Amino acid sequence: MEAELGSIRATLNFLLHDWLQVVRLSKRERFTEHGAETYAAVLDLCQRLAAERFAPFNRRVDVEEPVFDGERVRLPACTEEACAAYAASGLLAASQDYDAGGMQLPCVVEMAANSLFSAASIGLKAYSLLTAANANLLMTHGTALQRKVFAQPQFEGRYFGTMDLSEPQAGSSISDITTRAVADGADHEHDPLGPRYRIGGRKMWISGGDHEMGENIVHLVLAKIPDADGKLPPGTNGISLFVVPKHRVDADGRLTGERNDIVLAGLNHKLGYRGTTNALLNYGEGTGAIGYRVGAPGAGLRCMFHMMNEARIQVGLGAAMLGYAGYLASLSYARERPQGRPVAAGRTVVKNASQPQVPIIEHPDVKRMLLAQKAYSEGALALQLYCARLVDEQHTGPPAEAERARLSLEVLTPIAKSWPSEWCLEANSLAIQVLGGYGYTRESPVEQHWRDNRLNMIHEGTHGIQGLDLLGRKALLHDGEALEIVVERMRATAREARVLRELALQSVELATAVDLLARATQQAWSTGNAQEALANATSYLRAFGHIVMAWIWLELAQTSCRALDDPSAATDFHHGKLAAARYFFTFELPLAAVWLKPVARRDSLLRSTEPQWF
Amino acid sequence: MEAELGSIRATLNFLLHDWLQVVRLSKRERFTEHGAETYAAVLDLCQRLAAERFAPFNRRVDVEEPVFDGERVRLPACTEEACAAYAASGLLAASQDYDAGGMQLPCVVEMAANSLFSAASIGLKAYSLLTAANANLLMTHGTALQRKVFAQPQFEGRYFGTMDLSEPQAGSSISDITTRAVADGADHEHDPLGPRYRIGGRKMWISGGDHEMGENIVHLVLAKIPDADGKLPPGTNGISLFVVPKHRVDADGRLTGERNDIVLAGLNHKLGYRGTTNALLNYGEGTGAIGYRVGAPGAGLRCMFHMMNEARIQVGLGAAMLGYAGYLASLSYARERPQGRPVAAGRTVVKNASQPQVPIIEHPDVKRMLLAQKAYSEGALALQLYCARLVDEQHTGPPAEAERARLSLEVLTPIAKSWPSEWCLEANSLAIQVLGGYGYTRESPVEQHWRDNRLNMIHEGTHGIQGLDLLGRKALLHDGEALEIVVERMRATAREARVLRELALQSVELATAVDLLARATQQAWSTGNAQEALANATSYLRAFGHIVMAWIWLELAQTSCRALDDPSAATDFHHGKLAAARYFFTFELPLAAVWLKPVARRDSLLRSTEPQWF
Repeated sequence: MEAELGSIRATLNFLLHDWLQVVRLSKRERFTEHGAETYAAVLDLCQRLAAERFAPFNRRVDVEEPVFDGERVRLPACTEEACAAYAASGLLAASQDYDAGGMQLPCVVEMAANSLFSAASIGLKAYSLLTAANANLLMTHGTALQRKVFAQPQFEGRYFGTMDLSEPQAGSSISDITTRAVADGADHEHDPLGPRYRIGGRKMWISGGDHEMGENIVHLVLAKIPDADGKLPPGTNGISLFVVPKHRVDADGRLTGERNDIVLAGLNHKLGYRGTTNALLNYGEGTGAIGYRVGAPGAGLRCMFHMMNEARIQVGLGAAMLGYAGYLASLSYARERPQGRPVAAGRTVVKNASQPQVPIIEHPDVKRMLLAQKAYSEGALALQLYCARLVDEQHTGPPAEAERARLSLEVLTPIAKSWPSEWCLEANSLAIQVLGGYGYTRESPVEQHWRDNRLNMIHEGTHGIQGLDLLGRKALLHDGEALEIVVERMRATAREARVLRELALQSVELATAVDLLARATQQAWSTGNAQEALANATSYLRAFGHIVMAWIWLELAQTSCRALDDPSAATDFHHGKLAAARYFFTFELPLAAVWLKPVARRDSLLRSTEPQWF
Repeated sequence: MEAELGSIRATLNFLLHDWLQVVRLSKRERFTEHGAETYAAVLDLCQRLAAERFAPFNRRVDVEEPVFDGERVRLPACTEEACAAYAASGLLAASQDYDAGGMQLPCVVEMAANSLFSAASIGLKAYSLLTAANANLLMTHGTALQRKVFAQPQFEGRYFGTMDLSEPQAGSSISDITTRAVADGADHEHDPLGPRYRIGGRKMWISGGDHEMGENIVHLVLAKIPDADGKLPPGTNGISLFVVPKHRVDADGRLTGERNDIVLAGLNHKLGYRGTTNALLNYGEGTGAIGYRVGAPGAGLRCMFHMMNEARIQVGLGAAMLGYAGYLASLSYARERPQGRPVAAGRTVVKNASQPQVPIIEHPDVKRMLLAQKAYSEGALALQLYCARLVDEQHTGPPAEAERARLSLEVLTPIAKSWPSEWCLEANSLAIQVLGGYGYTRESPVEQHWRDNRLNMIHEGTHGIQGLDLLGRKALLHDGEALEIVVERMRATAREARVLRELALQSVELATAVDLLARATQQAWSTGNAQEALANATSYLRAFGHIVMAWIWLELAQTSCRALDDPSAATDFHHGKLAAARYFFTFELPLAAVWLKPVARRDSLLRSTEPQWF
């Protein structure tokens, strides 16, 4: 895996520096102490940790699945060691202020750093990801004491964190949660840790939901506060957020020695991502779990969604890096495995059996599978970094730019989450195909990548939900202004690329596709009927995603052309980027027009098919 | 699973009787004793056996993977019981002559019968499939004594059979096998069991390669006979076929008590299909394994390929039925699982949270996922049965018809193998998606379907190989006459359907797509350069497959329209077929034109991308 991480690093350098020019961020006040050297130092450290502490254990955590022995959850020791090494590096607080012990690292660099861990072991990575997200949320929405007592120990790696949204009867439909939070006594508003409640209910699919690592687990739990009649308010406006520690703590942050009333009802036995425990938790089987409200009553989902955009980009990043890891594994196999001979030029298919076999990378169909994987996974990584760069712009840019970045992010986030989840899963399937029978066995890493990646279309909002979000909300945001910003950004790239002879055709193709997209959006909503507009939302999501990815590849192709103008540049590397771009425009982008058709004509099939016909 | 098998049975009845009108086969001499009743009796029996002996154990054979304890391969007891029940039913010899103890069942009915077992447990089914294929090959190419000694006990379920083609250094490139067959003594031509050789070499990926079931395992092994200098002849013409029993037998078919020199070098630990052992076998670690030649020297691959077409249709059938099983599992979940609410008609996306949740089958995107699965899996099943019907035509039709059937089969076989392997795998992924988190756990059957199905794009000729076969050989067969027969068959359906108002549009769309296909084939070969023609062969395979499937669905839609003319017909069932057809024409067929473009312009990207650019 060391060679693979080196290869990923080369692409990260290209994306961060040649394309996104992240060193320019050093002009922003928040990042003045950073520059190419500090970014390189962070990436060096991550590359080493990923190679030493994560990659070697990726198969082990798959095979030695978490086990609940009736009392405790048992994990292989390498899990705690990987989490400890990650925490010791300071990366958990990478984006936090210096004052809070953070590094004030730009989001785009933090994302690049995290990509190396995701490639090495997604199952080991998830604990840190969730812990950082939990603590970041508390830093934004918690009180000073909540930050000190619950967030700080997470940044230090002493506590772990989870996000508890789903319930058995309410997966995608968060408004239907029934976990109750009842005010705990007359003085409940005066607890120093925040308004105190007794929490009761069942939370499902909780990643990192239980284990024995660290000193404590901090659960962030969505629940509803019943009204005076004991009824739960309907809809998402009735949802509040609570911090609920596994082990009780006092106002000085000391463990009291009491366990909170949270019971592990069982672990889920998953297809992949087995390194990460996934639990069903029962809150309040006894007297009720004690939790402290974070933010105002009814503001729970808003607080949670503050983090959700970044969480969704992280999901996309994980998917991208699984795709990348599979690509590199299959590339290395394809270079070394001799099999078959090239087809000779001529009217009939002739292969000279007395010639030696060639490495399979010589076969056009293997090149197709490698180019597809490269286009999917490197393109997806580029998209996540672009989104992370928008996060930085939103937080540190001049007001007008910050607002444009925020709106772009709203539109791009469902794509950043869903596109890699779908297409880097396909990349993983192609990696298996390149390895053939070997790819189908557990001797090779690629089957695990495929299993691990299958989760990403499901968690943090399913594929279908992302489509509804994109066409039902984001495309309409600010009367379509948010969409227009993204569309105009893509058109600008098409205009710029038109002057490059090598990219002139692609620039026209992108411009045409963007026009189709804008028109289809309008046509979908032209009758003003959400039922008609949204019936084909997933098809819209796919098309939009492919068009965004064509835009990304045109950007990267431009950057590569510029580099190739310098004869001393590493030309194989840049020719590879151009070939991947050409692959995407030849084999992928034309599909978008097909997917947009049912959207544009508001095709009724999916609305009108009756359940009893199946 | 009983309800699911009943549902599959209803579709089988529709396909066999309403569409393919199999009772007409009773006019053929070979099938005069058969008719609707005997076919129903066979299917009843299979449905019961599949429900009782296969389905309940599908998960067990996945979890209790075959284990090699250093001496023997251990399998769960249910495996032997399922194989024994299958053998006791007489199905192993279903297509054999009455004289040989067979049922003289048409291939199309045998295929339908087998589909029920594949849906119930593909991993348990494989043993019988391989055994029947092995014995069928021996009945065609073996001597009378080879048939009696090696084939007959397989039909009786006493022996099991395997096919040993691949080697570690020669997977897809069969001409590179190095297993040697050396004449065994001066009298080797006079052994009653056939010319006797000593076999030495390594065979990889051997399904059913070792276990303790039955009395013996009959391996059919491809090997090369060295020339006088000890050199192996290059190419596939140097390959011969040998029958090599695990336990030695005498000319009366009695076990001698001696083990042949075949050593289990290891079991492969697979991603799926775990019910079936998969072995690396070393032949001749000692004095050489004794094998008897089947057919002439150098005729090995020809003999093997005699069976390969049917084996490939069987692979396609297995893929189709895994897709079908997943579809029905997700359908049942979608009908029962409440989640979310319908979007209201109106300008903004409104959902009334105070209304109860609806079953997810009400959501358009879930209908999309169900329609896609239905179109993929039922369409794939229909294609396999159509191909099987062609096998019957080839064997029992009038000479001109038989020849047309043979040529059609040559063209359709790569599609019948590859299309279900690709798209019913996608169906299995959609089934997981419908179940969401539940689909990602081992509590539900759908994740196993997905893992099991991933093999089908790999074994019996990879996807890439099927593409080369289709565009490189089959499209050129008899100067394109074979292709023309298939193309004309599809055009005829388009012409017939045009008169039905409901199908008029689809009939035009199919005719247009068929024209594109014919033109792309010609353009691919227009420069007479196989390198240029074949660089995009996999894209051609995909497009051809989708066009064939559109043709299948237009056929089934016609049949359904006819049925709906009768008001007493089961209309929900037929409306479902029409909806699946409409799905396919709306969302799938238009992709074929995109995939044909690089083929038609002989796009050079996949040829010209240099290995060092990756």
